[in-house]
Amino acid sequence: MRYKITIEYDGTNLLGWQRQLDGPSVQQYLEEALIGFAKNNLVELDEPDENEKNDEQMLKLSNKTIIQGAGRTDAGVHALAQAAHFDLKKAMEPFRIREAFNAHLKINNAPVAVLDAEPVSDEFHARYSAKGRGYIYRILNRRAPSALERNRVWWVPVPLDIEKMRQGAAWLIGHHDFSSFRASACQALSPIKTLDKIDITAKGEEIIFEVEARSFLHHQVRNIVGSLKMVGDGHLQPDDIKKILEAKNRSAAGVTAPAEGLYLSKVKY
Amino acid sequence: MRYKITIEYDGTNLLGWQRQLDGPSVQQYLEEALIGFAKNNLVELDEPDENEKNDEQMLKLSNKTIIQGAGRTDAGVHALAQAAHFDLKKAMEPFRIREAFNAHLKINNAPVAVLDAEPVSDEFHARYSAKGRGYIYRILNRRAPSALERNRVWWVPVPLDIEKMRQGAAWLIGHHDFSSFRASACQALSPIKTLDKIDITAKGEEIIFEVEARSFLHHQVRNIVGSLKMVGDGHLQPDDIKKILEAKNRSAAGVTAPAEGLYLSKVKY
Repeated sequence: MRYKITIEYDGTNLLGWQRQLDGPSVQQYLEEALIGFAKNNLVELDEPDENEKNDEQMLKLSNKTIIQGAGRTDAGVHALAQAAHFDLKKAMEPFRIREAFNAHLKINNAPVAVLDAEPVSDEFHARYSAKGRGYIYRILNRRAPSALERNRVWWVPVPLDIEKMRQGAAWLIGHHDFSSFRASACQALSPIKTLDKIDITAKGEEIIFEVEARSFLHHQVRNIVGSLKMVGDGHLQPDDIKKILEAKNRSAAGVTAPAEGLYLSKVKY
Repeated sequence: MRYKITIEYDGTNLLGWQRQLDGPSVQQYLEEALIGFAKNNLVELDEPDENEKNDEQMLKLSNKTIIQGAGRTDAGVHALAQAAHFDLKKAMEPFRIREAFNAHLKINNAPVAVLDAEPVSDEFHARYSAKGRGYIYRILNRRAPSALERNRVWWVPVPLDIEKMRQGAAWLIGHHDFSSFRASACQALSPIKTLDKIDITAKGEEIIFEVEARSFLHHQVRNIVGSLKMVGDGHLQPDDIKKILEAKNRSAAGVTAPAEGLYLSKVKY
């Protein structure tokens, strides 16, 4: 029996989605919760992530995987609706799965909540079945730092020109080689991705980026937001985004926006 | 030279607005910051709070007051726009005051930010000149607990009927004896207050209460929200709010809503 869960988390004190040896992760909290209420009912997924085939340490960890996420998020990155799947030998009511997860997550004081659980077919795969992913990036654009949204937004104290950032963003929509916006550690086979949407809107003192694509390169959203912020504050012109894209070289682009403003907001199937 | 400042804070790990002997408070963080950048330029306000005249310990603390708030907030309560005033012997540029506060607050890693500073007349008094106060109360109304808004909302996992809560709230608008919604520790001279507004709106999975009055009794907003929540979940009927109000007795009312959902949102002058 395969189940899909939808997960919210506060990434501030986490090392990210993926289990790590040196600190807490979303996957670890979820797997410990699942073991807590379904210990004798579990199936090891035994499917190492394709990006990690050459990494012995990671392969060793992956071999113990019992919950497969739609995608990894970095340390400090949040999620409004991450998706994952796991298998049980015997069926369980979806609402009981959600309640049991949250009860066990609470015991560990985990900054993680399971919003929904549903049965899915055996062909469903949280990562490979995903047809699209959406991220939100929040900038707090005001002179005073944030007391209430600390670790939840990127505080940018200089005024940003939203219209110019939109003009810059327009160059990125569509099918491109995103090498300039790709982390050096990125293990994806190809730097070519199709960006479906970058909406930039003001909401009070915040500037919200909504970004959608089938899939993303490592740090792609943060590198895009970092370069667009430099358009917004006048360090770059909107047309510079086109030049950066065409350079196909990470060193051509701007800063990497900090993790704290980024939220995985949806995974479409 | 008198200045008014507008302050945002995350009350989660604070003992509230007022300086306390046993832990951090907003007033203490602000006063330490002010001493940090204007040590030789300060004027002690020396005006003990009228509610504390009979409390020797508090009077002793109050005698050292250099920043006077518009009102006290309890431990765990947040503020989007608290107001306060203080005096300097020599004038200082308002933008420099704000920047200096925030720089010194950062040194202490205080969950407090100064949003604005402005010169005011010597007659201005943050507490006594206030013509109105506004609070927001946030309920997260969904089955799953919150990962991202923990300590920022009251998590209520059972469905609440907003229309019934609005009907109950309507009884509270206007000039009433609010003894039933007053904390036993409240030191106000009279339980009679005029409630100008209780708006209740749904926003995604949240229910937002906006409450306004010239001034409030201790715990008044939290006690109102606690009783209205019991209307929303069916433990009380809307008309019970009228009966509770008429009982003029705290024991007639419902629970006190937790501090974590409450935000002081504005002080009008």
